[in-house]
Amino acid sequence: MDNPVLLREFVRNFAVMPGMKVLVHGGGVMASEMQKSMGMVPQMIEGRRVTDEETLKVVTMVYAGWCNKNIVALLQAEGCNAVGLTGADGNIIKARKRTSLYVESIGKEVDYGYVGDVDAGCVNAGFIYTLLERGITPVLCAINHDGEGSLLNTNADTIASSVAVAMANHGSVELTYCFEKDGVLYDKDDDTSVIAEIDRSKFEELKSKGIVADGMIPKLTNSFKAIESGVSKVKIKHARNLLNETGTTLLK
Amino acid sequence: MDNPVLLREFVRNFAVMPGMKVLVHGGGVMASEMQKSMGMVPQMIEGRRVTDEETLKVVTMVYAGWCNKNIVALLQAEGCNAVGLTGADGNIIKARKRTSLYVESIGKEVDYGYVGDVDAGCVNAGFIYTLLERGITPVLCAINHDGEGSLLNTNADTIASSVAVAMANHGSVELTYCFEKDGVLYDKDDDTSVIAEIDRSKFEELKSKGIVADGMIPKLTNSFKAIESGVSKVKIKHARNLLNETGTTLLK
Repeated sequence: MDNPVLLREFVRNFAVMPGMKVLVHGGGVMASEMQKSMGMVPQMIEGRRVTDEETLKVVTMVYAGWCNKNIVALLQAEGCNAVGLTGADGNIIKARKRTSLYVESIGKEVDYGYVGDVDAGCVNAGFIYTLLERGITPVLCAINHDGEGSLLNTNADTIASSVAVAMANHGSVELTYCFEKDGVLYDKDDDTSVIAEIDRSKFEELKSKGIVADGMIPKLTNSFKAIESGVSKVKIKHARNLLNETGTTLLK
Repeated sequence: MDNPVLLREFVRNFAVMPGMKVLVHGGGVMASEMQKSMGMVPQMIEGRRVTDEETLKVVTMVYAGWCNKNIVALLQAEGCNAVGLTGADGNIIKARKRTSLYVESIGKEVDYGYVGDVDAGCVNAGFIYTLLERGITPVLCAINHDGEGSLLNTNADTIASSVAVAMANHGSVELTYCFEKDGVLYDKDDDTSVIAEIDRSKFEELKSKGIVADGMIPKLTNSFKAIESGVSKVKIKHARNLLNETGTTLLK
Protein backbone atom coordinates (compact mmCIF):
# COMPACT_ATOMS: atom_id res chain seq x y z
CA MET A 1 0.00 0.00 0.00
CA ASP A 2 2.78 2.43 0.89
CA ASN A 3 4.84 1.91 -2.29
CA PRO A 4 3.02 3.61 -5.22
CA VAL A 5 5.14 1.95 -7.92
CA LEU A 6 4.66 -1.55 -6.53
CA LEU A 7 0.98 -0.83 -5.89
CA ARG A 8 0.40 0.17 -9.51
CA GLU A 9 2.21 -3.00 -10.68
CA PHE A 10 0.19 -5.12 -8.28
CA VAL A 11 -3.07 -3.53 -9.43
CA ARG A 12 -2.15 -4.18 -13.07
CA ASN A 13 -1.52 -7.85 -12.28
CA PHE A 14 -4.65 -8.16 -10.17
CA ALA A 15 -6.76 -6.63 -12.96
CA VAL A 16 -5.78 -9.36 -15.42
CA MET A 17 -6.31 -12.28 -13.03
CA PRO A 18 -9.05 -14.42 -14.53
CA GLY A 19 -12.22 -15.42 -12.68
CA MET A 20 -14.15 -13.86 -9.84
CA LYS A 21 -11.90 -12.14 -7.33
CA VAL A 22 -12.03 -10.06 -4.17
CA LEU A 23 -9.22 -7.80 -2.97
CA VAL A 24 -8.69 -7.15 0.75
CA HIS A 25 -6.10 -4.53 1.66
CA GLY A 26 -4.44 -3.03 4.70
CA GLY A 27 -2.66 0.30 5.05
CA GLY A 28 -1.17 0.17 8.54
CA VAL A 29 2.09 1.89 7.66
CA MET A 30 0.19 4.81 6.11
CA ALA A 31 -2.17 5.01 9.09
CA SER A 32 0.80 5.26 11.45
CA GLU A 33 2.36 7.98 9.27
CA MET A 34 -0.92 9.89 9.27
CA GLN A 35 -1.21 9.58 13.06
CA LYS A 36 2.30 10.96 13.45
CA SER A 37 1.62 13.86 11.06
CA MET A 38 -1.31 14.75 13.33
CA GLY A 39 0.85 14.62 16.46
CA MET A 40 -0.48 11.26 17.65
CA VAL A 41 1.66 8.33 18.83
CA PRO A 42 0.61 5.01 17.25
CA GLN A 43 0.27 2.34 19.92
CA MET A 44 0.54 -1.29 18.83
CA ILE A 45 0.23 -4.29 21.15
CA GLU A 46 0.97 -7.71 19.63
CA GLY A 47 0.60 -6.26 16.14
CA ARG A 48 -2.84 -4.78 16.81
CA ARG A 49 -3.43 -1.05 16.91
CA VAL A 50 -4.96 0.35 20.09
CA THR A 51 -7.82 2.34 18.58
CA ASP A 52 -9.26 5.24 20.54
CA GLU A 53 -11.80 7.59 18.95
CA GLU A 54 -9.21 9.76 17.19
CA THR A 55 -7.34 6.68 15.94
CA LEU A 56 -10.58 5.19 14.58
CA LYS A 57 -11.06 8.39 12.62
CA VAL A 58 -7.54 8.17 11.18
CA VAL A 59 -7.70 4.49 10.21
CA THR A 60 -11.14 4.95 8.65
CA MET A 61 -9.86 7.93 6.66
CA VAL A 62 -6.70 6.14 5.54
CA TYR A 63 -8.08 2.63 4.88
CA ALA A 64 -11.64 3.35 3.65
CA GLY A 65 -10.78 6.72 2.12
CA TRP A 66 -7.33 7.18 0.66
CA CYS A 67 -6.12 3.56 0.24
CA ASN A 68 -9.42 2.02 -0.81
CA LYS A 69 -10.47 4.67 -3.31
CA ASN A 70 -7.02 4.90 -4.86
CA ILE A 71 -6.99 1.16 -5.49
CA VAL A 72 -10.48 1.38 -6.99
CA ALA A 73 -9.49 4.25 -9.31
CA LEU A 74 -6.33 2.38 -10.38
CA LEU A 75 -8.32 -0.80 -11.05
CA GLN A 76 -10.90 1.15 -13.07
CA ALA A 77 -8.04 2.58 -15.15
CA GLU A 78 -6.97 -1.03 -15.87
CA GLY A 79 -10.46 -1.97 -17.01
CA CYS A 80 -11.39 -3.83 -13.82
CA ASN A 81 -14.81 -2.71 -12.56
CA ALA A 82 -14.04 -2.41 -8.85
CA VAL A 83 -16.22 -1.26 -5.96
CA GLY A 84 -14.53 -0.33 -2.69
CA LEU A 85 -16.30 -1.33 0.49
CA THR A 86 -16.08 -1.52 4.27
CA GLY A 87 -17.98 -4.12 6.25
CA ALA A 88 -20.65 -1.49 6.98
CA ASP A 89 -21.49 -1.18 3.26
CA GLY A 90 -24.30 -3.55 2.41
CA ASN A 91 -23.79 -4.90 5.95
CA ILE A 92 -21.11 -7.17 4.48
CA ILE A 93 -19.27 -7.75 7.75
CA LYS A 94 -20.61 -7.14 11.23
CA ALA A 95 -17.79 -7.26 13.77
CA ARG A 96 -17.90 -7.76 17.53
CA LYS A 97 -16.23 -5.02 19.58
CA ARG A 98 -13.35 -6.60 21.42
CA THR A 99 -13.68 -6.50 25.19
CA SER A 100 -10.62 -5.90 27.36
CA LEU A 101 -8.14 -8.70 26.87
CA TYR A 102 -5.36 -10.04 29.03
CA VAL A 103 -2.21 -9.82 26.91
CA GLU A 104 0.36 -12.33 28.12
CA SER A 105 3.41 -10.69 26.53
CA ILE A 106 2.93 -7.52 28.58
CA GLY A 107 1.19 -9.18 31.53
CA LYS A 108 -1.87 -6.93 31.70
CA GLU A 109 -5.40 -6.24 30.55
CA VAL A 110 -5.62 -4.14 27.37
CA ASP A 111 -8.64 -2.17 26.20
CA TYR A 112 -8.07 -2.02 22.44
CA GLY A 113 -10.89 0.52 22.04
CA TYR A 114 -12.73 0.49 18.70
CA VAL A 115 -11.28 -2.82 17.58
CA GLY A 116 -13.50 -5.54 16.18
CA ASP A 117 -13.14 -9.27 15.81
CA VAL A 118 -14.71 -11.20 12.97
CA ASP A 119 -15.14 -14.77 11.85
CA ALA A 120 -16.64 -16.34 8.75
CA GLY A 121 -20.11 -16.28 10.38
CA CYS A 122 -19.96 -12.46 10.38
CA VAL A 123 -19.64 -12.25 6.57
CA ASN A 124 -22.63 -11.62 4.29
CA ALA A 125 -21.22 -13.58 1.34
CA GLY A 126 -24.47 -13.21 -0.61
CA PHE A 127 -23.94 -9.53 -1.36
CA ILE A 128 -20.33 -10.18 -2.38
CA TYR A 129 -21.56 -12.84 -4.82
CA THR A 130 -24.21 -10.51 -6.20
CA LEU A 131 -21.46 -8.05 -7.11
CA LEU A 132 -19.16 -10.76 -8.52
CA GLU A 133 -21.96 -12.16 -10.67
CA ARG A 134 -22.41 -8.71 -12.20
CA GLY A 135 -18.71 -8.59 -13.14
CA ILE A 136 -17.86 -6.30 -10.24
CA THR A 137 -14.70 -6.79 -8.17
CA PRO A 138 -15.16 -5.94 -4.47
CA VAL A 139 -12.22 -4.19 -2.81
CA LEU A 140 -12.50 -4.52 0.96
CA CYS A 141 -10.66 -2.64 3.66
CA ALA A 142 -10.49 -3.72 7.27
CA ILE A 143 -13.01 -1.23 8.64
CA ASN A 144 -16.22 -2.88 9.79
CA HIS A 145 -19.21 -1.96 11.92
CA ASP A 146 -21.01 -3.25 14.99
CA GLY A 147 -24.52 -2.84 13.56
CA GLU A 148 -25.28 -0.14 16.13
CA GLY A 149 -23.74 2.79 14.31
CA SER A 150 -20.08 2.42 15.28
CA LEU A 151 -17.24 1.60 12.95
CA LEU A 152 -14.59 -0.83 14.20
CA ASN A 153 -10.98 -1.35 13.21
CA THR A 154 -10.28 -4.97 12.34
CA ASN A 155 -7.35 -6.99 11.04
CA ALA A 156 -7.06 -7.22 7.25
CA ASP A 157 -5.55 -10.73 7.32
CA THR A 158 -8.50 -11.94 9.38
CA ILE A 159 -10.96 -10.25 7.03
CA ALA A 160 -9.34 -11.95 4.04
CA SER A 161 -9.53 -15.32 5.75
CA SER A 162 -13.12 -14.85 6.98
CA VAL A 163 -14.33 -13.69 3.56
CA ALA A 164 -12.59 -16.63 1.86
CA VAL A 165 -14.22 -19.12 4.25
CA ALA A 166 -17.67 -17.54 3.91
CA MET A 167 -17.39 -17.69 0.13
CA ALA A 168 -16.16 -21.29 0.16
CA ASN A 169 -19.78 -22.22 0.94
CA HIS A 170 -20.65 -20.95 -2.56
CA GLY A 171 -17.80 -22.42 -4.61
CA SER A 172 -14.09 -23.17 -4.82
CA VAL A 173 -11.98 -20.41 -3.23
CA GLU A 174 -8.24 -19.76 -3.23
CA LEU A 175 -6.74 -17.31 -0.74
CA THR A 176 -3.47 -15.49 -1.47
CA TYR A 177 -1.70 -13.31 1.07
CA CYS A 178 0.59 -10.79 -0.58
CA PHE A 179 3.25 -8.97 1.40
CA GLU A 180 6.80 -7.63 1.18
CA LYS A 181 8.60 -11.01 1.51
CA ASP A 182 8.88 -13.84 -1.00
CA GLY A 183 6.99 -16.22 1.26
CA VAL A 184 7.43 -17.76 4.68
CA LEU A 185 11.21 -17.80 5.14
CA TYR A 186 13.55 -20.10 7.09
CA ASP A 187 15.78 -17.06 7.55
CA LYS A 188 13.80 -13.79 7.62
CA ASP A 189 16.76 -11.88 6.17
CA ASP A 190 17.24 -14.28 3.23
CA ASP A 191 14.55 -13.99 0.55
CA THR A 192 15.86 -17.14 -1.15
CA SER A 193 15.04 -19.28 1.90
CA VAL A 194 11.33 -19.65 1.06
CA ILE A 195 9.61 -22.63 2.65
CA ALA A 196 7.69 -24.12 -0.29
CA GLU A 197 5.05 -26.00 1.71
CA ILE A 198 3.81 -25.96 5.28
CA ASP A 199 1.23 -28.21 6.87
CA ARG A 200 -0.22 -27.87 10.35
CA SER A 201 2.42 -30.02 12.07
CA LYS A 202 5.27 -28.23 10.31
CA PHE A 203 3.68 -24.91 11.40
CA GLU A 204 3.79 -26.02 15.05
CA GLU A 205 7.41 -27.07 14.61
CA LEU A 206 8.41 -23.74 12.97
CA LYS A 207 6.62 -21.84 15.71
CA SER A 208 8.32 -23.76 18.52
CA LYS A 209 11.72 -23.15 16.92
CA GLY A 210 11.00 -19.43 16.60
CA ILE A 211 11.41 -19.56 12.80
CA VAL A 212 7.85 -18.33 12.42
CA ALA A 213 7.29 -15.39 14.77
CA ASP A 214 5.64 -11.97 15.22
CA GLY A 215 3.19 -10.93 12.47
CA MET A 216 3.67 -14.20 10.63
CA ILE A 217 1.94 -16.20 13.38
CA PRO A 218 -1.55 -14.65 12.99
CA LYS A 219 -1.13 -14.74 9.18
CA LEU A 220 -0.48 -18.49 9.30
CA THR A 221 -3.09 -19.12 11.99
CA ASN A 222 -5.67 -17.40 9.76
CA SER A 223 -4.44 -19.40 6.79
CA PHE A 224 -4.80 -22.77 8.50
CA LYS A 225 -8.21 -21.79 9.85
CA ALA A 226 -9.19 -21.03 6.24
CA ILE A 227 -8.00 -24.31 4.70
CA GLU A 228 -9.54 -26.26 7.57
CA SER A 229 -12.85 -24.47 6.87
CA GLY A 230 -13.23 -25.16 3.15
CA VAL A 231 -10.79 -22.85 1.34
CA SER A 232 -9.07 -25.04 -1.24
CA LYS A 233 -5.61 -23.44 -1.25
CA VAL A 234 -3.72 -20.72 0.62
CA LYS A 235 -0.58 -19.06 -0.73
CA ILE A 236 1.72 -16.53 0.91
CA LYS A 237 3.94 -14.57 -1.45
CA HIS A 238 5.49 -11.27 -2.45
CA ALA A 239 2.98 -8.80 -3.89
CA ARG A 240 5.00 -8.58 -7.10
CA ASN A 241 4.58 -12.33 -7.66
CA LEU A 242 0.78 -12.37 -7.76
CA LEU A 243 0.63 -14.04 -11.16
CA ASN A 244 3.40 -16.64 -10.78
CA GLU A 245 3.73 -19.83 -8.77
CA THR A 246 6.34 -18.70 -6.24
CA GLY A 247 5.87 -18.39 -2.51
CA THR A 248 4.70 -20.67 0.27
CA THR A 249 1.73 -23.01 -0.13
CA LEU A 250 -0.20 -24.08 2.94
CA LEU A 251 -1.56 -27.61 3.01
CA LYS A 252 -4.32 -29.12 5.11
CA MET B 1 -21.96 16.62 8.43
CA ASP B 2 -20.10 18.50 11.15
CA ASN B 3 -22.89 18.34 13.77
CA PRO B 4 -23.09 14.76 15.10
CA VAL B 5 -26.45 15.26 16.86
CA LEU B 6 -28.12 16.77 13.80
CA LEU B 7 -26.48 14.15 11.57
CA ARG B 8 -27.90 11.31 13.64
CA GLU B 9 -31.37 12.94 13.54
CA PHE B 10 -31.08 13.45 9.79
CA VAL B 11 -29.99 9.84 9.26
CA ARG B 12 -32.94 8.61 11.32
CA ASN B 13 -35.34 10.66 9.16
CA PHE B 14 -33.65 9.63 5.93
CA ALA B 15 -33.84 5.95 6.93
CA VAL B 16 -37.65 6.06 7.20
CA MET B 17 -38.23 7.95 3.92
CA PRO B 18 -40.28 5.64 1.72
CA GLY B 19 -39.29 4.66 -1.81
CA MET B 20 -35.96 4.37 -3.56
CA LYS B 21 -33.49 7.01 -2.42
CA VAL B 22 -29.92 8.13 -2.90
CA LEU B 23 -27.98 10.28 -0.42
CA VAL B 24 -25.25 12.66 -1.62
CA HIS B 25 -23.19 14.33 1.09
CA GLY B 26 -20.45 16.93 1.46
CA GLY B 27 -18.07 17.47 4.35
CA GLY B 28 -16.24 20.68 3.44
CA VAL B 29 -16.10 22.09 6.96
CA MET B 30 -14.54 18.88 8.26
CA ALA B 31 -12.07 18.78 5.36
CA SER B 32 -10.94 22.33 6.18
CA GLU B 33 -10.55 21.40 9.86
CA MET B 34 -8.51 18.36 8.92
CA GLN B 35 -6.31 20.45 6.62
CA LYS B 36 -5.66 22.90 9.46
CA SER B 37 -4.86 20.12 11.92
CA MET B 38 -2.19 18.98 9.44
CA GLY B 39 -0.74 22.46 9.13
CA MET B 40 -2.27 23.17 5.72
CA VAL B 41 -4.13 26.35 4.74
CA PRO B 42 -7.44 25.65 2.94
CA GLN B 43 -7.69 27.75 -0.20
CA MET B 44 -11.18 28.42 -1.58
CA ILE B 45 -11.93 30.43 -4.72
CA GLU B 46 -15.59 31.14 -5.48
CA GLY B 47 -16.62 28.39 -3.08
CA ARG B 48 -14.44 25.74 -4.72
CA ARG B 49 -11.45 24.24 -2.97
CA VAL B 50 -8.10 24.53 -4.74
CA THR B 51 -7.02 20.88 -4.60
CA ASP B 52 -3.32 20.08 -4.81
CA GLU B 53 -2.08 16.52 -4.23
CA GLU B 54 -2.05 16.79 -0.44
CA THR B 55 -5.50 18.39 -0.41
CA LEU B 56 -6.88 15.61 -2.64
CA LYS B 57 -5.61 13.13 -0.06
CA VAL B 58 -7.34 15.02 2.77
CA VAL B 59 -10.71 15.43 1.01
CA THR B 60 -10.68 11.79 -0.10
CA MET B 61 -9.94 10.69 3.47
CA VAL B 62 -12.58 12.95 4.98
CA TYR B 63 -15.39 12.58 2.40
CA ALA B 64 -14.95 8.98 1.19
CA GLY B 65 -13.54 7.71 4.49
CA TRP B 66 -14.76 9.32 7.67
CA CYS B 67 -17.98 11.07 6.54
CA ASN B 68 -19.20 8.43 4.10
CA LYS B 69 -18.57 5.39 6.27
CA ASN B 70 -20.03 7.01 9.36
CA ILE B 71 -23.24 7.79 7.51
CA VAL B 72 -23.36 4.22 6.21
CA ALA B 73 -22.83 2.75 9.70
CA LEU B 74 -25.52 5.05 11.14
CA LEU B 75 -27.97 4.12 8.36
CA GLN B 76 -27.29 0.41 8.92
CA ALA B 77 -28.06 0.92 12.62
CA GLU B 78 -31.43 2.41 11.56
CA GLY B 79 -32.20 -0.62 9.37
CA CYS B 80 -31.41 1.11 6.07
CA ASN B 81 -29.14 -1.08 3.94
CA ALA B 82 -26.71 1.59 2.69
CA VAL B 83 -23.63 1.29 0.51
CA GLY B 84 -21.17 4.19 0.48
CA LEU B 85 -19.59 5.02 -2.86
CA THR B 86 -17.40 7.45 -4.75
CA GLY B 87 -17.76 7.96 -8.49
CA ALA B 88 -14.81 5.58 -9.00
CA ASP B 89 -16.76 2.69 -7.46
CA GLY B 90 -18.54 0.79 -10.19
CA ASN B 91 -17.43 3.65 -12.45
CA ILE B 92 -20.58 5.50 -11.33
CA ILE B 93 -19.29 8.96 -12.20
CA LYS B 94 -16.39 9.80 -14.47
CA ALA B 95 -15.41 13.45 -14.07
CA ARG B 96 -13.39 15.71 -16.34
CA LYS B 97 -10.35 17.35 -14.73
CA ARG B 98 -10.91 21.07 -14.79
CA THR B 99 -8.41 23.00 -16.86
CA SER B 100 -7.17 26.39 -15.69
CA LEU B 101 -10.04 28.82 -15.50
CA TYR B 102 -10.22 32.59 -15.62
CA VAL B 103 -12.00 33.65 -12.43
CA GLU B 104 -13.60 37.06 -12.87
CA SER B 105 -13.95 37.93 -9.18
CA ILE B 106 -10.17 37.78 -8.67
CA GLY B 107 -9.21 38.70 -12.23
CA LYS B 108 -6.84 35.84 -12.95
CA GLU B 109 -6.38 32.28 -14.19
CA VAL B 110 -6.77 29.64 -11.50
CA ASP B 111 -5.46 26.09 -11.64
CA TYR B 112 -7.82 24.28 -9.28
CA GLY B 113 -5.65 21.14 -9.37
CA TYR B 114 -7.41 17.82 -8.84
CA VAL B 115 -10.89 19.25 -9.30
CA GLY B 116 -13.39 17.59 -11.58
CA ASP B 117 -16.52 18.75 -13.35
CA VAL B 118 -19.47 16.50 -14.02
CA ASP B 119 -22.76 16.59 -15.81
CA ALA B 120 -25.62 14.10 -16.08
CA GLY B 121 -23.90 12.42 -19.06
CA CYS B 122 -21.06 11.40 -16.73
CA VAL B 123 -23.36 9.36 -14.48
CA ASN B 124 -23.77 5.58 -14.81
CA ALA B 125 -27.36 5.50 -13.55
CA GLY B 126 -27.68 1.81 -14.41
CA PHE B 127 -25.50 0.67 -11.54
CA ILE B 128 -27.32 2.97 -9.12
CA TYR B 129 -30.61 1.42 -10.19
CA THR B 130 -29.23 -2.08 -9.80
CA LEU B 131 -28.48 -1.28 -6.16
CA LEU B 132 -31.83 0.43 -5.58
CA GLU B 133 -33.71 -2.50 -7.07
CA ARG B 134 -32.00 -4.78 -4.56
CA GLY B 135 -33.19 -2.58 -1.68
CA ILE B 136 -29.81 -0.93 -1.27
CA THR B 137 -29.47 2.80 -0.62
CA PRO B 138 -26.41 4.36 -2.31
CA VAL B 139 -24.60 7.03 -0.28
CA LEU B 140 -22.41 9.11 -2.58
CA CYS B 141 -19.64 11.52 -1.69
CA ALA B 142 -18.23 14.09 -4.07
CA ILE B 143 -15.01 12.23 -4.89
CA ASN B 144 -14.92 10.99 -8.47
CA HIS B 145 -12.32 9.70 -10.90
CA ASP B 146 -11.00 10.53 -14.35
CA GLY B 147 -10.93 6.92 -15.61
CA GLU B 148 -7.15 7.06 -15.81
CA GLY B 149 -6.39 6.25 -12.20
CA SER B 150 -6.73 9.69 -10.60
CA LEU B 151 -9.34 10.72 -8.10
CA LEU B 152 -10.91 14.18 -8.49
CA ASN B 153 -12.60 16.48 -6.00
CA THR B 154 -16.01 17.59 -7.24
CA ASN B 155 -18.91 19.64 -5.93
CA ALA B 156 -21.52 17.72 -3.92
CA ASP B 157 -24.41 19.96 -5.08
CA THR B 158 -23.47 19.29 -8.71
CA ILE B 159 -23.19 15.55 -8.05
CA ALA B 160 -26.68 15.54 -6.50
CA SER B 161 -28.10 17.42 -9.47
CA SER B 162 -26.30 15.28 -12.08
CA VAL B 163 -27.35 12.03 -10.43
CA ALA B 164 -30.96 13.22 -10.17
CA VAL B 165 -31.03 14.15 -13.88
CA ALA B 166 -29.39 10.87 -14.96
CA MET B 167 -31.94 8.91 -12.95
CA ALA B 168 -34.87 10.95 -14.28
CA ASN B 169 -34.39 8.96 -17.50
CA HIS B 170 -35.47 5.87 -15.53
CA GLY B 171 -38.42 7.26 -13.54
CA SER B 172 -39.80 10.15 -11.53
CA VAL B 173 -37.14 11.84 -9.41
CA GLU B 174 -37.36 14.46 -6.66
CA LEU B 175 -34.22 16.31 -5.56
CA THR B 176 -33.94 17.81 -2.07
CA TYR B 177 -31.01 19.98 -0.98
CA CYS B 178 -30.58 19.98 2.79
CA PHE B 179 -28.47 22.59 4.50
CA GLU B 180 -28.27 24.74 7.63
CA LYS B 181 -30.94 27.30 6.62
CA ASP B 182 -34.71 26.89 6.45
CA GLY B 183 -34.73 27.51 2.69
CA VAL B 184 -33.83 30.31 0.32
CA LEU B 185 -34.28 33.44 2.45
CA TYR B 186 -35.23 37.02 1.59
CA ASP B 187 -33.05 38.06 4.53
CA LYS B 188 -30.19 35.63 5.15
CA ASP B 189 -30.21 36.45 8.88
CA ASP B 190 -33.95 35.81 9.29
CA ASP B 191 -34.90 32.14 9.13
CA THR B 192 -38.60 33.06 8.98
CA SER B 193 -38.15 34.87 5.64
CA VAL B 194 -38.27 31.69 3.55
CA ILE B 195 -39.19 32.22 -0.11
CA ALA B 196 -41.79 29.50 -0.67
CA GLU B 197 -41.47 29.24 -4.47
CA ILE B 198 -38.94 30.38 -7.05
CA ASP B 199 -39.15 30.03 -10.80
CA ARG B 200 -36.42 30.89 -13.32
CA SER B 201 -37.47 34.52 -13.78
CA LYS B 202 -37.75 35.11 -10.05
CA PHE B 203 -34.28 33.55 -9.65
CA GLU B 204 -32.84 36.10 -12.11
CA GLU B 205 -34.58 38.90 -10.21
CA LEU B 206 -33.30 37.67 -6.79
CA LYS B 207 -29.81 37.37 -8.21
CA SER B 208 -29.82 40.85 -9.70
CA LYS B 209 -31.03 42.31 -6.37
CA GLY B 210 -28.26 40.45 -4.49
CA ILE B 211 -30.83 38.59 -2.37
CA VAL B 212 -29.47 35.32 -3.72
CA ALA B 213 -25.67 35.38 -3.53
CA ASP B 214 -22.50 33.37 -2.80
CA GLY B 215 -22.95 29.62 -2.35
CA MET B 216 -26.68 29.88 -3.00
CA ILE B 217 -26.14 30.77 -6.66
CA PRO B 218 -24.56 27.45 -7.75
CA LYS B 219 -27.09 25.56 -5.61
CA LEU B 220 -29.97 27.27 -7.45
CA THR B 221 -28.27 27.05 -10.83
CA ASN B 222 -27.88 23.29 -10.31
CA SER B 223 -31.49 23.07 -9.19
CA PHE B 224 -32.88 24.81 -12.26
CA LYS B 225 -30.66 22.74 -14.52
CA ALA B 226 -32.16 19.67 -12.85
CA ILE B 227 -35.82 20.64 -13.23
CA GLU B 228 -35.20 21.76 -16.81
CA SER B 229 -33.66 18.32 -17.49
CA GLY B 230 -36.43 16.07 -16.24
CA VAL B 231 -36.32 16.15 -12.43
CA SER B 232 -39.92 16.61 -11.29
CA LYS B 233 -39.36 18.70 -8.18
CA VAL B 234 -36.50 20.41 -6.35
CA LYS B 235 -36.71 21.48 -2.71
CA ILE B 236 -34.19 23.42 -0.62
CA LYS B 237 -34.61 23.11 3.14
CA HIS B 238 -33.04 22.72 6.56
CA ALA B 239 -31.60 19.24 7.16
CA ARG B 240 -33.85 18.82 10.21
CA ASN B 241 -36.95 19.30 8.02
CA LEU B 242 -36.33 16.41 5.67
CA LEU B 243 -39.71 14.79 6.33
CA ASN B 244 -41.95 17.87 6.36
CA GLU B 245 -43.16 20.27 3.68
CA THR B 246 -41.22 23.38 4.69
CA GLY B 247 -38.52 25.11 2.66
CA THR B 248 -38.30 26.54 -0.83
CA THR B 249 -39.72 24.77 -3.87
CA LEU B 250 -38.25 25.44 -7.29
CA LEU B 251 -40.60 25.51 -10.24
CA LYS B 252 -39.90 25.10 -13.90
